[in-house]
Amino acid sequence: MKLYDCTGAVNPRRIRIFLAEKGIDIDCAQVDVFKGEQYSEGFTKLNPLKAVPCLELDDGAVISEAVAIARYFEATQPEPSLLGKTPKDQALVAMWQRRVEEGLVGAATTFFHHATDGLGEADRYRNKEWGEANKPRVEETMRWLDQELEGRDFVAGDTFSFADITALCGVDFAGLFGISIPADCTHLAAWHARVSERPTAKA
Amino acid sequence: MKLYDCTGAVNPRRIRIFLAEKGIDIDCAQVDVFKGEQYSEGFTKLNPLKAVPCLELDDGAVISEAVAIARYFEATQPEPSLLGKTPKDQALVAMWQRRVEEGLVGAATTFFHHATDGLGEADRYRNKEWGEANKPRVEETMRWLDQELEGRDFVAGDTFSFADITALCGVDFAGLFGISIPADCTHLAAWHARVSERPTAKA
Repeated sequence: MKLYDCTGAVNPRRIRIFLAEKGIDIDCAQVDVFKGEQYSEGFTKLNPLKAVPCLELDDGAVISEAVAIARYFEATQPEPSLLGKTPKDQALVAMWQRRVEEGLVGAATTFFHHATDGLGEADRYRNKEWGEANKPRVEETMRWLDQELEGRDFVAGDTFSFADITALCGVDFAGLFGISIPADCTHLAAWHARVSERPTAKA
Repeated sequence: MKLYDCTGAVNPRRIRIFLAEKGIDIDCAQVDVFKGEQYSEGFTKLNPLKAVPCLELDDGAVISEAVAIARYFEATQPEPSLLGKTPKDQALVAMWQRRVEEGLVGAATTFFHHATDGLGEADRYRNKEWGEANKPRVEETMRWLDQELEGRDFVAGDTFSFADITALCGVDFAGLFGISIPADCTHLAAWHARVSERPTAKA
């Protein structure tokens, strides 16, 4: 089994933290998306969407998409649970994971790819106005999350989950472009400090 | 338990088919997004993202996002499995579900909301160029899926899954705007005929 990873990219970090929380250690290969290595013929064959993370199983099957890779490891090693145990918790984690994935990681990534030079691909379609429109969306999501975190410790409830991992990576990625946690979002800032202190946040 | 549904909208249909496949019958309330009912104070309180489908559990918890609602029912009633049984199948369904959700449902919805009058909301941010850019993306996804379906019966493998439901709803929704299956995509057309013939496709 091999994980195609890229240090410095937002989605691979989600899986590195996920695996570190579960204590899973696997072979990794670096695909440097900042140098365009995802466009190589070999990698495009593995993942036609040319994105990391990507997991190659021992039987040759390839799993791309962070949510799918997380699902695989949750099923092979359920403890500690990061996707929820009861049906309700599984649904709440899936819901919040999706909300912060779209509102933080997705919106920040859209800003990065459309309103900045992104990964430097000269031939990539860019719509600067669309990119700029996603910047306030990140801030709105942060404000919404701040209100939600007034009543609980973690994004999807009282337990650390994949939703926290996605939100942490989203907040940190947005911060690279100056989209910081608003000063009055004290609950979000406290949560961010709490999850950043976990040793796995360095993964 | 109550499902907030909307006949004619793409994402609620995904859950109606999912429930029909499992033989689950629950109370439904219609939220007519074509009349703007998702903006009512009552519904906004249930789902701040103002979108259907949305599931209210008996304890008052609210689950929005189609993937999260599907996850809830897969956990409460595992048979027939629509999200995969083995770790590998779970991952493949999650991966393909996401791919067709983004490339078909998401791209067609972006075209609808940005390049057309969408739901008729006068104050909605629109970026016509971004909407138009998503139209060829739907067609590209159809062509990719056509190649993949040369080797297997269903989107995620040999078994009907939530990935097929999402793809079916995406293809049908795109068809409403004249984005049809390209004539030379015979494998995709055969798959579409096959899944459309299931009685649950009418749900």
